[in-house]
Amino acid sequence: MKVQPLDERVLVEPLEQEEKVGSIIIPDTAKEKPSMGKVIAVGTDEELKKILKPGDKVLFGKYAGEEIKIEGKKHLIIKLEEILATVQ
Amino acid sequence: MKVQPLDERVLVEPLEQEEKVGSIIIPDTAKEKPSMGKVIAVGTDEELKKILKPGDKVLFGKYAGEEIKIEGKKHLIIKLEEILATVQ
Amino acid sequence: MKVQPLDERVLVEPLEQEEKVGSIIIPDTAKEKPSMGKVIAVGTDEELKKILKPGDKVLFGKYAGEEIKIEGKKHLIIKLEEILATVQ
Amino acid sequence: MKVQPLDERVLVEPLEQEEKVGSIIIPDTAKEKPSMGKVIAVGTDEELKKILKPGDKVLFGKYAGEEIKIEGKKHLIIKLEEILATVQ
Amino acid sequence: MKVQPLDERVLVEPLEQEEKVGSIIIPDTAKEKPSMGKVIAVGTDEELKKILKPGDKVLFGKYAGEEIKIEGKKHLIIKLEEILATVQ
Amino acid sequence: MKVQPLDERVLVEPLEQEEKVGSIIIPDTAKEKPSMGKVIAVGTDEELKKILKPGDKVLFGKYAGEEIKIEGKKHLIIKLEEILATVQ
Amino acid sequence: MKVQPLDERVLVEPLEQEEKVGSIIIPDTAKEKPSMGKVIAVGTDEELKKILKPGDKVLFGKYAGEEIKIEGKKHLIIKLEEILATVQ
Repeated sequence: MKVQPLDERVLVEPLEQEEKVGSIIIPDTAKEKPSMGKVIAVGTDEELKKILKPGDKVLFGKYAGEEIKIEGKKHLIIKLEEILATVQ
Repeated sequence: MKVQPLDERVLVEPLEQEEKVGSIIIPDTAKEKPSMGKVIAVGTDEELKKILKPGDKVLFGKYAGEEIKIEGKKHLIIKLEEILATVQ
Repeated sequence: MKVQPLDERVLVEPLEQEEKVGSIIIPDTAKEKPSMGKVIAVGTDEELKKILKPGDKVLFGKYAGEEIKIEGKKHLIIKLEEILATVQ
Repeated sequence: MKVQPLDERVLVEPLEQEEKVGSIIIPDTAKEKPSMGKVIAVGTDEELKKILKPGDKVLFGKYAGEEIKIEGKKHLIIKLEEILATVQ
Repeated sequence: MKVQPLDERVLVEPLEQEEKVGSIIIPDTAKEKPSMGKVIAVGTDEELKKILKPGDKVLFGKYAGEEIKIEGKKHLIIKLEEILATVQ
Repeated sequence: MKVQPLDERVLVEPLEQEEKVGSIIIPDTAKEKPSMGKVIAVGTDEELKKILKPGDKVLFGKYAGEEIKIEGKKHLIIKLEEILATVQ
Repeated sequence: MKVQPLDERVLVEPLEQEEKVGSIIIPDTAKEKPSMGKVIAVGTDEELKKILKPGDKVLFGKYAGEEIKIEGKKHLIIKLEEILATVQ
């Protein structure tokens, strides 16, 4: 079973605090806290496929995306324009 | 009798909870719950026909589309841009 | 005497419940009830003429169009983008 | 003395009820009552000149246009996009 | 000393009631009263220069433009799109 | 030390009342009072460089731009589209 | 570990008051106070790379960008269009 995002959307699994990369910490006090997640699947848009691939870690705005559950785990479907940065 | 959506619209029959695909569960607590449905007919747009076909299962936002009844069953007419992903 | 819609507009005569096509029923409880009507005249736009012709039955959103009366009968002038589907 | 509308604007003289064309009656109860008028002058836009000419009778939305008086008579300067249809 | 409007803007000197052209009277009761003025300078846009020249009398919406004083006289800097018509 | 505006922005030093050019006076009662200033630096946009240069006197809307201080003096960074006219 | 902004975004480290360049002081009373920062990383957009590079000092609006922490230090991810000027 597979969720394939359409167009410029990305399926992202949010990372728990302890999984977050190294020293990036997103403060609780930020007015619009960006969150971090792992890319699970990229949409059908050709340009998008050049920018992101499954496994990439990404930062996105607090209110970005729509929430679904896959095998009991929370995921988000987020538009590319709402993804702020990759984290390596 | 046939409903033929115009342009980039899709006629979708929402899936009941028990019909939903495998392990995708849409939580009641999500701020904008996406829903799942089966594509019944695709619009007249040529690009749309390459992306979706009757029988495809799709995820869409909670407030997406306009509701009609066909032979007593609820259906939705949804624009492509409101369809988040396909589910296989 | 003739009303000729301009551009991408369509002159539509709304259908009474009993005239509606077969088994499509538009529920009273839908948040934005689409309505059904018969196309009387299509606008001057060339693309529009390929999509709709007089006599077609169409579904449109509850608040679509502007109301006029012709020979005592209510009609609507609706933009193509507000027409959801044709019904055959 | 002459008022020459600019661009896609049209100078229209609203028609009194008794002058209105044949059987088109615009009901008082319509949420956005379109009105009828006679085209007095068309704007400088070349495409507009192909669509409307002085003497044409047109339907337009209730709040369309800006009001001026010429020789004591109320007129409206209306944009083409606010003109719904011609009446013949 | 000279005020040169930029782009599609026009410098206009509003006309007092007694200077207004012939029989055009702008009623006090109109919801958005257009006003009349004389063009003093046209902006740097090439297309604009083909449409208006200094000395032209123009009609514009009541809230159009920004007010400045030149040698004690009220003037307005108005965008072309807010000019409704010329008056000859 | 130098502030170089980006894109279509202009660095402007507002003029005190006594420095204002000749007879242009901006009334206190105008709903959106335009102000006058001297261009200090123009942005990186090529078209902008053809329109304005350092030393030009410009009129701009009351709420235009963002305020900074350079060597104790108030300056504004204003977008070209908010500059109404040059004054010579 | 590296944060790579996407598209036209820039990773900026805000400058403390004492680090600010020379005589530019941003007053507390400005309605929308621009702030100053140092560019840490530029996005993937080719045009952006011609305009800004790591180490550049930039001015940006008070509400620009989204806040993250890297190794305990506050950073901002800001879109190019929200960057007002460079400071040299």
